[in-house]
Amino acid sequence: MTASLQSLLAPRSIAVIGASDNAHKIGGRPIHYMKTHGYAGTLYPVNPQRDTIQGLRAFPTLDALPEVPELAIVIVAGDAAVQAVRDCARLGVAAAIVIASGFGEAGAEGRRQQDEMVRAARSAGMRLVGPNSQGLANFGSGAIASFSTMFIEVPPQDGPVAVVSQSGGVAAMVYGLLRGQGIGVRHMHATGNQADITVSELALAVAHDPGVRLVLLYLESLSDPEVLAEAARVARARNMPVVAVKAGRSQDGQRAAASHTGAMASEDRAVDAFLARHGIWRVDDAHALARCAPLYLRGWNTEGRRLVVVSNSGASCVMAADAAPSFGLALAPLSDATQAALAERLPGFAATANPIDVTAALLTNSALFGDVLPVAARDPAADLFLLDIPVSGMGYDVPRFARDAAAFADRAGKPIAVAVWQAAVAEAFRQAGVPTFASAAEALGAFGQLVSHQQRLRQIAEEGAPPLPAAPALPASIAAGVTLSEAASLARLSAAGISVVEHYLCQDVDAAVAAWRRIGAPVAVKASSPQVPHKSEHGLVALHCNDPGAVASAFTSQVRTLKAMGAACEGIVVARMARGQRECMVGAHWDPVFGAVLVVGDGGKYVEVLRDTAVLLAPCRQADVARALDRLRIAPLLRGVRDETAVDIGALCRLALQVGELVHAAGGAIRSVDLNPVMASAQGVVVVDALIEVPAAALPMRS
Amino acid sequence: MTASLQSLLAPRSIAVIGASDNAHKIGGRPIHYMKTHGYAGTLYPVNPQRDTIQGLRAFPTLDALPEVPELAIVIVAGDAAVQAVRDCARLGVAAAIVIASGFGEAGAEGRRQQDEMVRAARSAGMRLVGPNSQGLANFGSGAIASFSTMFIEVPPQDGPVAVVSQSGGVAAMVYGLLRGQGIGVRHMHATGNQADITVSELALAVAHDPGVRLVLLYLESLSDPEVLAEAARVARARNMPVVAVKAGRSQDGQRAAASHTGAMASEDRAVDAFLARHGIWRVDDAHALARCAPLYLRGWNTEGRRLVVVSNSGASCVMAADAAPSFGLALAPLSDATQAALAERLPGFAATANPIDVTAALLTNSALFGDVLPVAARDPAADLFLLDIPVSGMGYDVPRFARDAAAFADRAGKPIAVAVWQAAVAEAFRQAGVPTFASAAEALGAFGQLVSHQQRLRQIAEEGAPPLPAAPALPASIAAGVTLSEAASLARLSAAGISVVEHYLCQDVDAAVAAWRRIGAPVAVKASSPQVPHKSEHGLVALHCNDPGAVASAFTSQVRTLKAMGAACEGIVVARMARGQRECMVGAHWDPVFGAVLVVGDGGKYVEVLRDTAVLLAPCRQADVARALDRLRIAPLLRGVRDETAVDIGALCRLALQVGELVHAAGGAIRSVDLNPVMASAQGVVVVDALIEVPAAALPMRS
Repeated sequence: MTASLQSLLAPRSIAVIGASDNAHKIGGRPIHYMKTHGYAGTLYPVNPQRDTIQGLRAFPTLDALPEVPELAIVIVAGDAAVQAVRDCARLGVAAAIVIASGFGEAGAEGRRQQDEMVRAARSAGMRLVGPNSQGLANFGSGAIASFSTMFIEVPPQDGPVAVVSQSGGVAAMVYGLLRGQGIGVRHMHATGNQADITVSELALAVAHDPGVRLVLLYLESLSDPEVLAEAARVARARNMPVVAVKAGRSQDGQRAAASHTGAMASEDRAVDAFLARHGIWRVDDAHALARCAPLYLRGWNTEGRRLVVVSNSGASCVMAADAAPSFGLALAPLSDATQAALAERLPGFAATANPIDVTAALLTNSALFGDVLPVAARDPAADLFLLDIPVSGMGYDVPRFARDAAAFADRAGKPIAVAVWQAAVAEAFRQAGVPTFASAAEALGAFGQLVSHQQRLRQIAEEGAPPLPAAPALPASIAAGVTLSEAASLARLSAAGISVVEHYLCQDVDAAVAAWRRIGAPVAVKASSPQVPHKSEHGLVALHCNDPGAVASAFTSQVRTLKAMGAACEGIVVARMARGQRECMVGAHWDPVFGAVLVVGDGGKYVEVLRDTAVLLAPCRQADVARALDRLRIAPLLRGVRDETAVDIGALCRLALQVGELVHAAGGAIRSVDLNPVMASAQGVVVVDALIEVPAAALPMRS
Repeated sequence: MTASLQSLLAPRSIAVIGASDNAHKIGGRPIHYMKTHGYAGTLYPVNPQRDTIQGLRAFPTLDALPEVPELAIVIVAGDAAVQAVRDCARLGVAAAIVIASGFGEAGAEGRRQQDEMVRAARSAGMRLVGPNSQGLANFGSGAIASFSTMFIEVPPQDGPVAVVSQSGGVAAMVYGLLRGQGIGVRHMHATGNQADITVSELALAVAHDPGVRLVLLYLESLSDPEVLAEAARVARARNMPVVAVKAGRSQDGQRAAASHTGAMASEDRAVDAFLARHGIWRVDDAHALARCAPLYLRGWNTEGRRLVVVSNSGASCVMAADAAPSFGLALAPLSDATQAALAERLPGFAATANPIDVTAALLTNSALFGDVLPVAARDPAADLFLLDIPVSGMGYDVPRFARDAAAFADRAGKPIAVAVWQAAVAEAFRQAGVPTFASAAEALGAFGQLVSHQQRLRQIAEEGAPPLPAAPALPASIAAGVTLSEAASLARLSAAGISVVEHYLCQDVDAAVAAWRRIGAPVAVKASSPQVPHKSEHGLVALHCNDPGAVASAFTSQVRTLKAMGAACEGIVVARMARGQRECMVGAHWDPVFGAVLVVGDGGKYVEVLRDTAVLLAPCRQADVARALDRLRIAPLLRGVRDETAVDIGALCRLALQVGELVHAAGGAIRSVDLNPVMASAQGVVVVDALIEVPAAALPMRS
């Protein structure tokens, strides 16, 4: 962790500029919290109106302090906040947290003031959190530079979770949900407008904290993917899961995010690809951020997805069995020996196959859960255990159930989750250290997440870490683009070593007919003009031409059409008709945040309608592309249905890697490459049509 | 409601056979509940060991009672239960509820005992609930013939909801979840093994109860769809929503259900189709059953899906905007006038576009929610309101928020839901009568359900009620089946008035060539044998034959192949090659519960892999098929992409109706019809291949 982040998370001294004697006011809360939760450094309330604040000596100005504080919390608003930041910078304060809102998120004047704060801070080497930030709270060091009211609603307890969020509301909510589960939270940081310090930087800082075992993030914007990737790398090395919400998935959400924290949008599937690549698990909201924590924190490792369901309700058994597949889980097939052993312990009318219904006999035999679980756990087919208790409470020996489940959780080495909606019953399990969920669906969702997340982390460990994005190489944005012609696009691909369909760019009818003869098979005749990227719509593609007359007539007609359209004619392409078992597509485009983004999938003319594509970041590895193809709806068709042979998936992967590498290496000089269709068959893949788009400013390109 | 169900729900007198003086035992609880909750009829504890039970005079036997009780609760188990049912039947008791388990769900001997109970009851005209039932509870009449402990966990209160369930656990859980929301529950019935009385029958009974406004069902088996359809009809007439879980969706779930209550499986998509047809909303679990109740019970009617989000957290605004489309909702575009009016009421830096972020200014201005909501509600683009409060409690004027939201809920006539996870805050809204959810996702899910359910109910109201299934016509099951040959299948379709591709069944090469000449276009040559339903896999289909040699050679080769396979040859079909814009499929099969089940969708050789089909019950209407087609992934292709013309969707619908009618009219004499491909184009649809399967026993069919 850099020293400046250390100054944010564990400063030796803190000035509170705009301190209040009232512990319930924004300017009073941080002081109150730090006094209550054992901050061991020195606190300097700054307030020209009082001599003491909450029992501490107060100072009229920052300059009046006996030393330069390491950290300053700026509570004052507007111009006063800007001036306070200037003062901090001038004095050599290491870091400042600006709480007030009304800056970058609130129009031009606020943006100007925010920029001024950043300028002042940068010029002095001072780091800045906010503005519009709820502050940072570290219950490890007691440095609670946050005004969140949630610490009063739900009392803090230091623990293994770090929450880092652009939004104070999300930070507080996740904190509250975790504490409600009895889970301790060490870090609860909110970065607000991120004028300087980002969620990624703080994520990296807390990933280094040896007391942290789980990192939960909320992001609206992501401008420094290389830092977040590094945080993920540090976390992976420590076997520490990172879970993130990246909000602004939808168009409306992006618009709302832009007005909330000024976030810039990337294509959402590129965000997916980035997070997956680095082993960060993506979820949708604050509840989902907190949900899986009890399972992660138990430190269970599991590769298997085979579930055992134990319940005192047959209906819960049926519904859990129904739900399992939606979460990527399957019921474990228990062996005959296991079932026989279960039968000895269960009432005669109970089901010993999985799901295991111990029936209402649980009312009279409180040992049933404890008897059944370890027997099932010895079956090698059993990976995960759901204890689903839809009815208990009065008349049931709940403390016994909780003890038995806790003993199982401690000894079996296999994950267990309890689904129970009755608050008091849930609390008994929770206090015994057993992960507890309000519903079976939530428990199974958490299991699915745990297993899939660990699977992805194992993949990364086995295949080697993904490359970190090269931050400085990314241009912030690319303005208008222009398309290359068909011939120029194909030539550019060839130049990059990508094999394309046999074709000839012809300037007259004779050349076209000669090209057909050289190919010696049916040909496609296609006009090549940078101004007409979508040729078929204008009748500028003739397929299956297989005699001089057809070739000549297509040529003449296309030249005439281009002329009528007023479009430049680079010539007419005569290309071999290629056939494939499946028309696929490979594309890549340049994203200002993530660089080269690769798209592979089902191709043909319905590509935009059927939308069966997968997105990856480039450069990547063949295994990554193969996995992406495997998630497509057409995956079984690529593998070969019934008597069909499989298409050459390896060749399709290699083509995708080449295209990704091409756009990556261009570093923004290519906006997009679109190859559709790519004819895929058992014999390999053939690029038939190509469309490359480059930034308008960079023209002309060599082609 | 029939008199016998009246005897179950509001009996004048009740005998408890196996009554206990201990209010905490199964035999004691019903008596205790009825004494506590004001049952006004006469209670007769039956127990040979005691003179009084819980202060009531006890009787040694049923015969010793001063009158024949209207209802008997049989608490005793095993043979004693069978004998008690016999005694009840002999004496003329109107209905009996058998609590004990260990009967039909527990093997052959239990099944025999259960059958004996049913026989005894039927012979006397007595109705039977259970066995393996938790009992019935009616808080309207005070007849609480149930031993559920949940009435102690969560105190009962009569109210507008009826819960009818095969499972006692689910009934209790849904009851508990509703009561936890402060919602009153009148009926909580569990039918157990359903040896006689079913969920459908009780659903019909409670649908007639004028005090009920919402019916929630849990089913594992459904043997009497006609009764459930009638219950749905009664409910629709009263504008009363019915929501159901039908468990056993998955194979594992069906197996578990079979061992739980002996449920028989139908194809799950047919269950979907049945419930949707009758306007019953299907959900997946007990939580989902209870979830939407607060919205339903407010009686809001809305056709619109345009959502307004109001929050004190910008992040919640972004996440709600992200989530809305997943629930079929869109953000309402607020007019400039509305936004101007909002700007007058909001702090300068707040967002006035939807979602509306009132910001942390809510801490100092508690009127913000109350100011903003009615202004937004006057915008005609606003249909639904989500108030998302991720952080409040200490320092916030929560009672004011609740009052303002309640006033809005009462006056605006537009649905509002509050998302709040803090229990105490939620309680304040709930007590004010505002629907409250633990998360925005749950609230939006409930909104989506409310709007879609009401939309479906309006469709039914506009298009006329769907036909009720004709219960007695359904054979319980159909054993093995045999396929008809291609020619016989096509002939059977023609006989039913379905137009098929021009074709000729030829017995020799000359006839085949003559057929090709008559068609005057390329033909397909296909072997016709009842033993080879899948011809292509055996090389028994030759396409694009367009000269005498090709036709003759295909004919000869196919006859030879059939001979080599030892398969009967009915002849060789010569059929016109039909082309279509899209290869579709139409199929129908006979389901022992639902009758004719229709399948329409994308066709071709990948139909099983790409699985883009929709299921309906037949007979149905053209609008039903059109809606089903509209849900397909290929729907945009059918409507015509870019410059393509649309296929004749009406013709495809009419073909589907004919096929559904054919299988429906056959009443089980046709197991299935499979038409794939059906060539669909702007000119209409052509049935190219047909495969009909009939019950083995019913052969030979006229073809």
